[in-house]
Amino acid sequence: MDGQAAADRRVMAKLAHYLPALAWARGYDRATLASDMTAAAIVTIMLIPQSLAYAMLAGLPPEIGLYASVAPLLAYAAFGTSRTLAVGPVAVISLMTLTAASAIAAPGSQRFIAAALILALLSGLILLAMGLLRLGFLASLLSHPVVSGFITASGILIAASQMKSLLGVDGGGATLPELIAGLASDLASIHPPTLAIGVSACAFLFWVRSGAKPLLIRLGIAPRVADLLAKTGPIAAVAASTLAVLALELEDNGVRVVGQIPQSLPPLTLPLFDAQLWRQLAVPALLLSVIGFVESVSVSQTLAAKRRQKIDPDQELIGLGAANVAAAFTGGYPVTGGFARSVVNFDAGAQTPAAGVYTAAGILIAALFLTPLLAALPIATLAATIIVAVLSLVDLRKPVEIWRYSKPDFAAMLATILLTLAIGVEAGIIAGVGLSLALYLWRASRPHAAIVGRVPETEHFRNVARHRVFTDPRVLTIRIDESLTYLNARWLEQFILEQIAEKREVRHLILMCSAVNAIDASALESLEMINRRLADAGVRLHLSEVKGPVMDALERSHLLDGLSGKVWLSQHEAFTKVIALADREQESLAAPDLWAARGAI
Amino acid sequence: MDGQAAADRRVMAKLAHYLPALAWARGYDRATLASDMTAAAIVTIMLIPQSLAYAMLAGLPPEIGLYASVAPLLAYAAFGTSRTLAVGPVAVISLMTLTAASAIAAPGSQRFIAAALILALLSGLILLAMGLLRLGFLASLLSHPVVSGFITASGILIAASQMKSLLGVDGGGATLPELIAGLASDLASIHPPTLAIGVSACAFLFWVRSGAKPLLIRLGIAPRVADLLAKTGPIAAVAASTLAVLALELEDNGVRVVGQIPQSLPPLTLPLFDAQLWRQLAVPALLLSVIGFVESVSVSQTLAAKRRQKIDPDQELIGLGAANVAAAFTGGYPVTGGFARSVVNFDAGAQTPAAGVYTAAGILIAALFLTPLLAALPIATLAATIIVAVLSLVDLRKPVEIWRYSKPDFAAMLATILLTLAIGVEAGIIAGVGLSLALYLWRASRPHAAIVGRVPETEHFRNVARHRVFTDPRVLTIRIDESLTYLNARWLEQFILEQIAEKREVRHLILMCSAVNAIDASALESLEMINRRLADAGVRLHLSEVKGPVMDALERSHLLDGLSGKVWLSQHEAFTKVIALADREQESLAAPDLWAARGAI
Repeated sequence: MDGQAAADRRVMAKLAHYLPALAWARGYDRATLASDMTAAAIVTIMLIPQSLAYAMLAGLPPEIGLYASVAPLLAYAAFGTSRTLAVGPVAVISLMTLTAASAIAAPGSQRFIAAALILALLSGLILLAMGLLRLGFLASLLSHPVVSGFITASGILIAASQMKSLLGVDGGGATLPELIAGLASDLASIHPPTLAIGVSACAFLFWVRSGAKPLLIRLGIAPRVADLLAKTGPIAAVAASTLAVLALELEDNGVRVVGQIPQSLPPLTLPLFDAQLWRQLAVPALLLSVIGFVESVSVSQTLAAKRRQKIDPDQELIGLGAANVAAAFTGGYPVTGGFARSVVNFDAGAQTPAAGVYTAAGILIAALFLTPLLAALPIATLAATIIVAVLSLVDLRKPVEIWRYSKPDFAAMLATILLTLAIGVEAGIIAGVGLSLALYLWRASRPHAAIVGRVPETEHFRNVARHRVFTDPRVLTIRIDESLTYLNARWLEQFILEQIAEKREVRHLILMCSAVNAIDASALESLEMINRRLADAGVRLHLSEVKGPVMDALERSHLLDGLSGKVWLSQHEAFTKVIALADREQESLAAPDLWAARGAI
Repeated sequence: MDGQAAADRRVMAKLAHYLPALAWARGYDRATLASDMTAAAIVTIMLIPQSLAYAMLAGLPPEIGLYASVAPLLAYAAFGTSRTLAVGPVAVISLMTLTAASAIAAPGSQRFIAAALILALLSGLILLAMGLLRLGFLASLLSHPVVSGFITASGILIAASQMKSLLGVDGGGATLPELIAGLASDLASIHPPTLAIGVSACAFLFWVRSGAKPLLIRLGIAPRVADLLAKTGPIAAVAASTLAVLALELEDNGVRVVGQIPQSLPPLTLPLFDAQLWRQLAVPALLLSVIGFVESVSVSQTLAAKRRQKIDPDQELIGLGAANVAAAFTGGYPVTGGFARSVVNFDAGAQTPAAGVYTAAGILIAALFLTPLLAALPIATLAATIIVAVLSLVDLRKPVEIWRYSKPDFAAMLATILLTLAIGVEAGIIAGVGLSLALYLWRASRPHAAIVGRVPETEHFRNVARHRVFTDPRVLTIRIDESLTYLNARWLEQFILEQIAEKREVRHLILMCSAVNAIDASALESLEMINRRLADAGVRLHLSEVKGPVMDALERSHLLDGLSGKVWLSQHEAFTKVIALADREQESLAAPDLWAARGAI
C-alpha cells in the first residue's frame, strides 16, 4: 500500500511539473481572486483594441485577433510557469505571420487565414517538441544584439507598413524600400479626413504615454491608479474616433472602418493538413517560435525576478506551445507573451495565471456582445495604436552602445537590421544568427595561449611576453587558457608545431593544462598526433596540472601509453625535473651536435 | 632610392608569401635534383594505375585521371607550402565527384564530364576564396570523429561499388543497401574469368602490402629500396593481368578491359558557364573542397613535422585551389593531396615541390606514349587496386576507441557513418557537422559554475560542494569557469536568479570572474539585467577578480555606473568587506524582519 502511495506521489509530482496550475490553484483564496479580477479587467480593456489592431497588421480579419486572445490564454494558464505573463497576439509575431502567409496567398483570403492557422499549429508543435526534448538552449543562438536589432528593424517595418492606413492611401510593399516607394507614389491621393483621425489618434496616444498620468494625478487620482488608467488610453481613442465617425458620417466620406465583425464564440477550426504547405511554412514557423519564445521568456523572467519567483524555460516552451496549438484549433493565429500587457497585468496586481483566465472571459464577452460597437471604428485609429506601440520597440541608442562595446556584436546587429529592412524578417534573423555563430566559432578556433616561464624566487609561471621570467632554451612551456575541443584542435597542432619548428633547440615541451576543463576526442587525437610528430622531431611532450576529470578521461585513451614525456602534478615540479632530465640527456650525448645534425636532415 | 628598394623588398616578400616556390627554387642544387628525380620516378609508376582507377571510380574515362595528374601538380608546386605533398586524384574525392555529377547526368556522358570540370573549377574557386579571406578555420567544423567516420564509410562504399567490376556483373546503386541489393540480384551472372583476374589481383596486392618487403629483403635488397619497390606493386598487377588478357585472349571471352585511351596532351578545356548547373553543384563542391583540404593538410602537416618544416594552412588553401582550377582548364577533375603517394614521395627522398613537377612530366610522357599498352588492362585489376587501397581507409577500431573516450563524439561519428552509408556522402558530412556543432553549442550553453566559500585560515576559495569552506548566508559567491558569451548569457541569468529565488536570506551576490577571459555584448546585457533584477529583489551585485582586458571593456559600458555593489580586486577582499557591509546593514535596519517581509510581498 505504501508503495502505491509513493507511486501516486511520484505521479502527482510529475503531473505538477507539467501542469504548474496545480501548484497555485490549491492555495487560491478570495484576496487573490479580487487582485486577479482587477488586473484582468484592465488588461481586457487594453487588449480589445490591440487584438483587433494586431490581427489587421497580420493581414487577418479583426475578429481573429479576439479569438487568439481567448483559448491561448487558458492553455497558458494551465501549462505556463510565469504567474503574470499575458499571452496573445503581439506586433512582431503578427508581422512575421503576415510575411510567411503572404508567400502562400493574398492577405485576408481564405487560404491566407488557413496558412495563419497552420503557422500557429506548427509553431505550437515546434515549441512543445523543444520543451519536451529540453531544447530551450537553442534560443541562446539568438544573441541579444541580434534580437535587439531584429526588434528595432521590425518596429520600423511595422510603423512604415501602417502609414498607408494613417494617410488613407493604397501604398503597399513588404520591405522598407518598397513601403517607402509605395507611399511616395501615392502621396497625391492622401485622404484628409482619414489623415485627421490618424494624426489626432497618434498625437493623443503619444500624449497619453507621458502626459496623461501627471494630469490624472493632478486631478486627484492616486498615482498607481493614474498609471493604470493611462494604459487604457487606446480604448479612449477607439471610443472617441468611433463616435466621430458616427457623428460626422465620415464613413460615407470615404474613411475606412473596421466594418461588421461577427458576434461569435471563437470557432472550432481544424488546420488544413497539406504536406506541401506545411513544408513551405516550416522554417517561418521555426523562426517565429524561437523569436516569440525569446521575447516571452525575457518578459516573464523580468517579472518573476521582481517577486523572487522562478520560471522554468523548458516548461515555458510547453506553455507557449499549448497556447499556439489552442490558437490553431480556435480560429486564431500565432501568439506569444506580450511585454506591455504583461507589465500592466503585473502592475495591476495579478497574483496568479487565473488573471489570464478572467481576461480570456472578458475578451469572450467582447467577442459575443461588443463587436457591433466596433463596426464604425476607423482603421486609421488602429494604425495609430500600432504605430505608437511599435515605436517604443525601436531603440536607436542600442546600436551605438554596442558599437562602442564590441565590434563583432555590432556587425551581427547591423546585418540583422539591414537585412530585415531590405529583404525581410526571415533573412534578417538568419543572417544575424549565422554571423554571430561564425564570429563565435572564429574566436573559439583561436584560444588564448601563452609561453610561460617561472617568476624568479617563486613557484609561479607567467607569460614570457609580459613578465621577466626564467626559461630554459631546451624546455618550452605552453599554457592553454581554454578547454581543448575540435574547434581549436587544429589550431593547437599548428601552434605547437610552429613553435617547435622555430625554436630548434627545444627538446621538451610542457603543456600546462591548468585552464583545460575538458578535452574532446578531436583534441585528444591532436594531442596524440602532436606527441608522435614531436617524437619524430626529437622533442618529448609533457603535461602538467591536468585536472581530475580530464585525467580520468585521458586514462581511458591511448595518449598516456604512448606519451614521450610524463604527466606532472604541478608545473613547478614539471619544470624543475624536466630541466634536470635535459641536463642528463645532454651529458649522456657525447656529441650534443648530433641532435642538431638530426634536426637538419 | 632607398624607399624604392624597401618597397621592392616588400613586394618581393609579399610575392614570396603567395608564391612559396620562390623560396626553395633559389637554393636548388644538383643533389636536390637527384633526390627529387628519384622520388618522382617512383611516384609516377605508382600514380599511373591509380590515376586510371580513380577516374574510373569517379565515373570518368580513364585518361581524365592522367590529365588530372599533370597541370594540378605544377600549380601546387608553385603555390603550395608543403615540400613533399603529392597532389592528384584520390579515392574519397573521386567518390564525391561521382555522387555530385551523377545528380546532373549519367556517369561517362559528355554532360557528366562537363559537371566534373565545373566541380573542379568551383572547388578551386572556393579554396582560393577561403585562402585569400583566411577562412581556413572553417575546416575546424569537421571534427576528427566526423572525418574519421566519413573516411571509413566512404572506404566501405567505394569497396562495395567496385565489387561489381571484380565479379564481372552489372550491379549498381549509390548507397550501401542499394549496392548490396544490386550485387545480390546479379550473383547468378558472375563472370568466372573476370572473377579470377579480380581475386588474384586482390590477393597479390594484399600480399604485396605485407609480404613483398620481407621477401625482397631476404633476396638481398636494401630495406628502404625494398619498401619503395613494394609500393609499386600495383604496376606489377597491371602488367601481369594485361599480359594474361593478351595471352589468353580473354577480351573475346568477355573480360572487360580499359580499351583504347587517346594518346594526347591534357586538352585545354573551358568549364561550361551554366548558372543553374553551378548552383546545383555549389554545395557538393563546398563539401568536397573542405574534405579535400582537411585530408591534404593533415598529410602535409604530418610530413612537415617529421623534418621540422612549416606549412601555412591558409596558403595551402591557395595551393590546392590553384591545383583544382588547373584541373578544370586541362580536362581533369577535382584533386587534392593524397596520403599514400605523399608518403611514398617523402620516403623516396623528395626534397622540394620540384619532385611534383618531374612527376607531372612522367605522367605526361605516359599520357603521350604509354596508353596503347594499357588498352588490354582488365577493369577488374583496377577495381582490385581501388579495393585494396580504400580498405586501408576503413578503421573499425576507431569507433570503439571513441565510444570509450567520449559519448557525444561517438554519436557524431555514428551519425556520419550511418548516413554516409545509407543516404550518401553529402548527407553524412552535413549530419556529422550539424550534430557536432549542436552538441558543442549545448555544452557551451551550460558552462561550469560553482558556489564557493573560503577555505578556513587561507585566502583561497573553493567549491562548497567539494570542500569544507566558510560561507555566510547573506553573501553568495558564484565562480564562473568560462568566458561569458551569448551562448551562456541566458543560462547565467537563469542560474543566478534561481539561486537568489532559492536562498531568500542572500543580500549580496559576488560574481568571481577569475576564469572569465571575455564578456560579449549579450552577456553584458545579461549582467545589467541581473543587476537590475537583483536590485528589485533587494540583492546587491558585486564582481571580483575581473581581468584587465575585461575591465577595460566594461568601462566602455553602462554596467559599472548602475552596479548596485562594487568591483573588488581580489575575492578575499570582496568576501571580507561585503560581510562587514552586510553586518552594518543589519545593524542599521532596526527590525531585520522588514527584509523578510519585503521578500514575501
